[in-house]
Amino acid sequence: MTSTGKWTDGVEGILLDITGVLYESGESEAITGSVEAVKRLKEAGLPVRFCTNETTTTRQVLVDKLNRFGFDIKSEEVFAPIPAMCQVLKERNLRPHLLISRNASADFSGVPTDNSNCVVLGDAVDEFSYANLNKAFQILISLDKPILFSLGKGRYYKDGKDLALDVGSFCRALEVIMDG
Amino acid sequence: MTSTGKWTDGVEGILLDITGVLYESGESEAITGSVEAVKRLKEAGLPVRFCTNETTTTRQVLVDKLNRFGFDIKSEEVFAPIPAMCQVLKERNLRPHLLISRNASADFSGVPTDNSNCVVLGDAVDEFSYANLNKAFQILISLDKPILFSLGKGRYYKDGKDLALDVGSFCRALEVIMDG
Repeated sequence: MTSTGKWTDGVEGILLDITGVLYESGESEAITGSVEAVKRLKEAGLPVRFCTNETTTTRQVLVDKLNRFGFDIKSEEVFAPIPAMCQVLKERNLRPHLLISRNASADFSGVPTDNSNCVVLGDAVDEFSYANLNKAFQILISLDKPILFSLGKGRYYKDGKDLALDVGSFCRALEVIMDG
Repeated sequence: MTSTGKWTDGVEGILLDITGVLYESGESEAITGSVEAVKRLKEAGLPVRFCTNETTTTRQVLVDKLNRFGFDIKSEEVFAPIPAMCQVLKERNLRPHLLISRNASADFSGVPTDNSNCVVLGDAVDEFSYANLNKAFQILISLDKPILFSLGKGRYYKDGKDLALDVGSFCRALEVIMDG
């Protein structure tokens, strides 16, 4: 990368991951140099968008955190699973039963959830309780054509020094339970 | 069945299930006629043994409950998964991490559980929390040769008018998570 601008030739835009790229999970500051790097990309006149598989919080809370870390990011520049999910639900006229983190539920506001005809799993973390898994299972098994969406496919991730089960594992679990 | 005793010809013993046979799950009395039936079997001189897949409680608590319901059953007449599991653990020199109902833990007393080299799942019900599933997963993935025992294979059972996830579902879930 040079300051001549030539490296941007043929580059129509930049798509950046967030966690592990702009900041490390659990940390309370940006990864060294990342604030400056994003700034330079934007100053080079390139459209920059951010994508994330984060489903433990709302998009706005995530954006606010990033901006506290020194970034200058707008909500509409961030592509996250829940807004995409909401669009699919609307298009297919689906009313989800949500098994998601309580902190993320605001991003589903306005989505009808009565008489659920599908289940949506997010990274619910401690909300993956027996009672909540049971409820999701009961709804799936009550449907003629069970529909299960997962907001991520990851089996597990590194959480500090430990591994932690991710939403993809719970999705696979419900799949095999339903398949018998 | 007649009272002449002839029906016992060639019968060397009787093996009876407990839940759903002697009493219904969640009920606080014996199924009508079952106390009398067991009594007649014993009076006919037949050895009677009871088997159960019950892992939410200790064998003794189960036997005490049955005797409160009017049966006359000794602990050693009841074959339950946990005592069988303890025997296997001893034979194979295994030290389990237990993901079981707290009410059943006394039946594992004396079993070494330090430096776990296998995981044992029982019908842990509400103990199937995210934290506990995570812990079981972390132990399995840390082992060169992960060993997972399940005290039951049932996917789900009828709990009142609802279906409830059974231990077999959590075993399958951990299996697919480990298989990737």
